[in-house]
Amino acid sequence: MKNIVTVGGGTGSYTVLTGLKNIPDVSLTALVSMSDDGGSTGVLRDELGVLPPGDVRQCLVALSEHGEVMRKLMNYRFSEGTLKGHSFGNILLAALEKVTGDFVQGVEVASEIMKVKGNVVPTTKNKAELYIKLVNGKILEGENKIQEANVQDIGIEEIFYKNKVELNQKAKEAILKADFIILGPGNYYCSVVPNFIVDGFQDAIGESEAKIILPINLTNKLGHTTNWKVSSYVNSVEKYTGRLVDYILVNNEEPSLEQIERYKLESGDGVIVIDDFKDSRVIRESLLSHVIPLPLVGDVSPNTRGFIRHDSEKLANCIKKIIEI
Amino acid sequence: MKNIVTVGGGTGSYTVLTGLKNIPDVSLTALVSMSDDGGSTGVLRDELGVLPPGDVRQCLVALSEHGEVMRKLMNYRFSEGTLKGHSFGNILLAALEKVTGDFVQGVEVASEIMKVKGNVVPTTKNKAELYIKLVNGKILEGENKIQEANVQDIGIEEIFYKNKVELNQKAKEAILKADFIILGPGNYYCSVVPNFIVDGFQDAIGESEAKIILPINLTNKLGHTTNWKVSSYVNSVEKYTGRLVDYILVNNEEPSLEQIERYKLESGDGVIVIDDFKDSRVIRESLLSHVIPLPLVGDVSPNTRGFIRHDSEKLANCIKKIIEI
Repeated sequence: MKNIVTVGGGTGSYTVLTGLKNIPDVSLTALVSMSDDGGSTGVLRDELGVLPPGDVRQCLVALSEHGEVMRKLMNYRFSEGTLKGHSFGNILLAALEKVTGDFVQGVEVASEIMKVKGNVVPTTKNKAELYIKLVNGKILEGENKIQEANVQDIGIEEIFYKNKVELNQKAKEAILKADFIILGPGNYYCSVVPNFIVDGFQDAIGESEAKIILPINLTNKLGHTTNWKVSSYVNSVEKYTGRLVDYILVNNEEPSLEQIERYKLESGDGVIVIDDFKDSRVIRESLLSHVIPLPLVGDVSPNTRGFIRHDSEKLANCIKKIIEI
Repeated sequence: MKNIVTVGGGTGSYTVLTGLKNIPDVSLTALVSMSDDGGSTGVLRDELGVLPPGDVRQCLVALSEHGEVMRKLMNYRFSEGTLKGHSFGNILLAALEKVTGDFVQGVEVASEIMKVKGNVVPTTKNKAELYIKLVNGKILEGENKIQEANVQDIGIEEIFYKNKVELNQKAKEAILKADFIILGPGNYYCSVVPNFIVDGFQDAIGESEAKIILPINLTNKLGHTTNWKVSSYVNSVEKYTGRLVDYILVNNEEPSLEQIERYKLESGDGVIVIDDFKDSRVIRESLLSHVIPLPLVGDVSPNTRGFIRHDSEKLANCIKKIIEI
């Protein structure tokens, strides 16, 4: 039995966990960043003072061994009345935090209800308000603001939490016990890095004997990581974590011209991550999904949402080969 | 294995089911009226067009074999923000109706999630708007209005549904298969009778070979059944159902003076149901609860809510003896 820890939040974690769930003889722990403050999650944070449930919900759904109805239920979003905009799963996690008095314990109960294979663990139990300081001195307050901002033109000086945010003890234990730690993929500054800057994370990953696996994002986020190459990600991750990465997973299947064109329509050039890295740590495989998701109703980014993305199964198979070495 | 069907909704059903759950070798089906339109349930009905979840939730909680956290979760009521006033269990049932497209199926999924021992079955799948016609010709529209009204001074001519409301096929099957059917206890005109007047209920109970058990309410509802005696309940139930009752369960332990005084403070005289019935069908036992519930925060009736009420265990033991005859 190999202990595998994923680090992230949001759609990237959903993709990697969905694939990993089917690998035999692994014990999975998903560490999830707690800085999300937008949408239904943001409203629940503000109104009820709970920790952000959205990313946790996605990980629970990915690891659920329940049937389709339960997964649909967790992702169901009310479209009318006072509940409008809230996803059911977020409401469940908010209520469980209230009932148990503790978000981490609430997530455990939710995991039981959803028959989750593995563990979903918030990286921190603190209220985590993400701030970003730009090179020009300007400070963006809140992940939601950072999501929308064009931070790259000015340059990022520092990304930090408003208050001291400590590593959840359970997250620490998982890191120390891990045989493999997978960093990402996902929205780099809003889902991935927020884990690295939690107080105690660097120490724990430094102490851990786990091998570090870094699946490189397929696309850059406009204004955040525009024009980033594979080397940019590797360098940045190694700087933030203080650890050398052991395996770098790079997709070597070109997206179709049509796929690229659709991205360019919205995001301009510099969105596809260029493979510039010469290093024996790199594993190159096709990791590209050929599933074209249907646009969601009211989707603000119908062309790019999930269009060029990792294939869960390919990514899991690639990781499986590393684990079996 | 004896098939037992309870008919009601709300707190009365909760009490009887909580006790019956622990009787061995019984298969329980709780039929629940669908006319509730107040509180969180009413808001969800209005805004989302779902069937009323509140009474179903109480029955699910009563029959749940999950631990305390799950029961607390289902009854948890949000106290802040846009979710204020909603109970989590109601939101769950509303979301499940939306996801499955069918309230009855939604209740089945909820039963699975909550590890329910037995079945909770809505008496009807139709939108059930309860109307009451008074002797003076006035019509009260909606269960919520009826709850609050003083209908007894004027007298009730008829209680009916605005639209034709049909017996749910699963409810019919349960009635036909039943060995025992328990009518009530509970709020007579708002929880119990609304089941009897569903189209097809009289026919089904007429066709059923089940023995009918009637636990008489301990207290009358002010303005609805003020001054009712045991005979009033028996006569009314037999009129509404078209069936003779086989067993009449009457509490023979006097509530304490203190208990009665507290009721009188709010409700005046005529609240305690007087035992006036001479009939071999009557079983007299102490069915009175000695648990004094803590008043709920914001409770409008702190003196009377649940103060003189059935003891789940005593009621179940009394029913158990009948079943074993």
